[in-house]
Amino acid sequence: MNALPHGALALSSLEEQMLQPGVKGLPLTAPLRQGAIGVQGWNVLHGDTSFPVAVLKTSALRHNLEWMRDFCDRHGVRIAPHGKTTMCPQLFGAQLANGAWGITLANAVQVRVAHRFGVRRVLVANQLVARSDVRMVLQLLHEDPGFECVVLADSLAGVARLAEEVDAHPLTRPLSVLVELGLSGERAGCRTPEEALTVARAIERAPGLVLAGFEGYEGLLVSDDHDADLRAVSSFVARLCALVREADDEGLFGTREILVTAGGSSYFDLVARGFQELHGLSLPLVPVLRSGCYLTSDHGMYQRHIAALDAREGVEPDAGLRPALEIWSVVQSRPEPGLAILTMGKRDASHDAGLPVPLWHHRPGPGAAHALPDGCEIVKMNDQHAYLRLPEGPVREMLAVGGLVGCGISHPCTTFDRWPLLLAVDDDYAVRFALNTFF
Amino acid sequence: MNALPHGALALSSLEEQMLQPGVKGLPLTAPLRQGAIGVQGWNVLHGDTSFPVAVLKTSALRHNLEWMRDFCDRHGVRIAPHGKTTMCPQLFGAQLANGAWGITLANAVQVRVAHRFGVRRVLVANQLVARSDVRMVLQLLHEDPGFECVVLADSLAGVARLAEEVDAHPLTRPLSVLVELGLSGERAGCRTPEEALTVARAIERAPGLVLAGFEGYEGLLVSDDHDADLRAVSSFVARLCALVREADDEGLFGTREILVTAGGSSYFDLVARGFQELHGLSLPLVPVLRSGCYLTSDHGMYQRHIAALDAREGVEPDAGLRPALEIWSVVQSRPEPGLAILTMGKRDASHDAGLPVPLWHHRPGPGAAHALPDGCEIVKMNDQHAYLRLPEGPVREMLAVGGLVGCGISHPCTTFDRWPLLLAVDDDYAVRFALNTFF
Repeated sequence: MNALPHGALALSSLEEQMLQPGVKGLPLTAPLRQGAIGVQGWNVLHGDTSFPVAVLKTSALRHNLEWMRDFCDRHGVRIAPHGKTTMCPQLFGAQLANGAWGITLANAVQVRVAHRFGVRRVLVANQLVARSDVRMVLQLLHEDPGFECVVLADSLAGVARLAEEVDAHPLTRPLSVLVELGLSGERAGCRTPEEALTVARAIERAPGLVLAGFEGYEGLLVSDDHDADLRAVSSFVARLCALVREADDEGLFGTREILVTAGGSSYFDLVARGFQELHGLSLPLVPVLRSGCYLTSDHGMYQRHIAALDAREGVEPDAGLRPALEIWSVVQSRPEPGLAILTMGKRDASHDAGLPVPLWHHRPGPGAAHALPDGCEIVKMNDQHAYLRLPEGPVREMLAVGGLVGCGISHPCTTFDRWPLLLAVDDDYAVRFALNTFF
Repeated sequence: MNALPHGALALSSLEEQMLQPGVKGLPLTAPLRQGAIGVQGWNVLHGDTSFPVAVLKTSALRHNLEWMRDFCDRHGVRIAPHGKTTMCPQLFGAQLANGAWGITLANAVQVRVAHRFGVRRVLVANQLVARSDVRMVLQLLHEDPGFECVVLADSLAGVARLAEEVDAHPLTRPLSVLVELGLSGERAGCRTPEEALTVARAIERAPGLVLAGFEGYEGLLVSDDHDADLRAVSSFVARLCALVREADDEGLFGTREILVTAGGSSYFDLVARGFQELHGLSLPLVPVLRSGCYLTSDHGMYQRHIAALDAREGVEPDAGLRPALEIWSVVQSRPEPGLAILTMGKRDASHDAGLPVPLWHHRPGPGAAHALPDGCEIVKMNDQHAYLRLPEGPVREMLAVGGLVGCGISHPCTTFDRWPLLLAVDDDYAVRFALNTFF
């Protein structure tokens, strides 16, 4: 009998778990097995769920998964989607099933979650420095010979920290490290190619470590000046590629392949094109994008960036990535003619890159939702409330206490982490199954 | 044999649960029983935890619990702390053990969490309008005759929604409803006393509902103009009290006591003083404050408001409410002389009412933490990173990669909801036990 795939039991245990009343979005009055959610006959538009509720449209998810698989095939790149966006094991599984090379994560705790649910290759797009955090990762590499993990370094002090811990907890294989190239005035990462090469040489020399490639994050360059962004991103990717070439010329890589990785969710096309310039190395190259937000897109900042990307790629408007994530809430008060107070707030939807975008309204019951007219705007959120301003006109009559409102969001990362459980729905908002997050 | 107190089994099940590697803040490489956390010998300053980690100082929690009990005794008021701040059953228990009248909550899902862990009296400081949400509460009242719950209404439509659901799911006792008095241009609530009385009369007439009192939230009046706030808050509380008197004169209350409730975490002293003016009613009055943030205070907006409150109350500076909540992270990169990148971000600390406040630094190991000098400032956060600007001086040498940084936060509500588990520590940062949240 073959062993079950790694993580299969952990994933199936999510379906087996008994959910207690008190899970956001679920209308439970008694415990319910998670796997039975899809047979309850719930429909968001019928008012069957609790509100607010976070929904993911399966048709959009499926489209976006296929879109990215095709994109990577076309551009000869791989993707290790940033898992921190969703921290959702079921979505990690869908991404891997659609060709993802691995899953990117931000820290050791996230690596443990991904490993538990069967992810076999992770890229930690950060320096691990705290002793306990390094050990949490080393112990996995020690116990699970098939598990692969690469981490970043951007300083000699960081390399020394990693080397110390590997020395204290020897592995049967070296720890793979990427050097991070940064940007002046921005986040982590070496500021110059010289600095990056110095760190690369230190990794090459450190017992127990091996230089696996170079990493950068062009997403920090996103500004309001699109043309300036394009030049800056292309130039940054070129610098990253030049580093790979120099390190290869010096023979610093200790792996069988060379990794080069960059790519947030706004300019990954430019990154992919930049990586195509890198050939003729002494080892096979694995160019890896790390976009996390392509999977759900949004109705805010990423929708704008993705529209620009579609234009660069020549994608027809309808064929691009689709927004998959919506938050539905209820009008709990209509205290003034131009104001509706909704039962959702900062606890339920992103507010760091634009407030939620009101899209739909519906009186609970059969039928399809109606688009809200222009001029409807969420102008403020408290912890548990949103303030929806209504323009003059019939919407003021239609949007009564008890009415449902569906909103898009801007920045999926800071919405996913507000929901331990999201509901997958079809295009009619019938609830099909649940998705768990681990933040 | 006496039955166990309500919720005791659920609370003890938290101590019995096996925590898997991958819980934020915990350095787990194997499952650990939650109740065993306190005997691991972990100390945050020794670098034993994972980072970032959220800690609550038990000495400050104990002080604040006693402070509020004394405050309520002195002013002849009760408190139903807003549970949405922490959503932490262990802290609900501590608040009730220190004299809280009940727990305030924001919605039906939160009510279910509180009930599950033994809270016997809740005040839902919101309109419940969605069918499923009303039913989640009615079902508790139906099944558990000792459970008490009051909800708000601010419109005839809202009263009708409640009455319909009660009619469809009859209770053996009426549902207690408070009328919400609001503020023009602000959130929910009736805009005029006339409107509020109209809603009160509708509740009185509705079969299955009973008018229990009036509610308001003066916290929406908080502005930068302290003197204007004082006048506006006192005037609002006076209007609320006048409403209670009018409704009493009309004989609208159907309960054995009259509830009047207001009070966020900035001006609850003014609310308490205002409630003292209300006497000579036909029924006993229960004046209830609802501050949620007194329990942990903060190092930002509430610290400023509480300093002003202390001044009004004549409290000695050292005797006031103390900040209890800190987030500790690690310097993961020192890419520029004046910049340290920390392993915490918007996923870990509030950013809606000011960025975290850097307080302490410490090289992992024995000894006490040192205060960071003036001029250290967190200037930006990404999802998983904070940018700490360092002034010229010795701090630039001291704060190396791997160093620990302790930060205070501004606005506890939007930090608690980032942590499924927080660690209670003593004044030396030794880890004593864990606290769970349910968001």
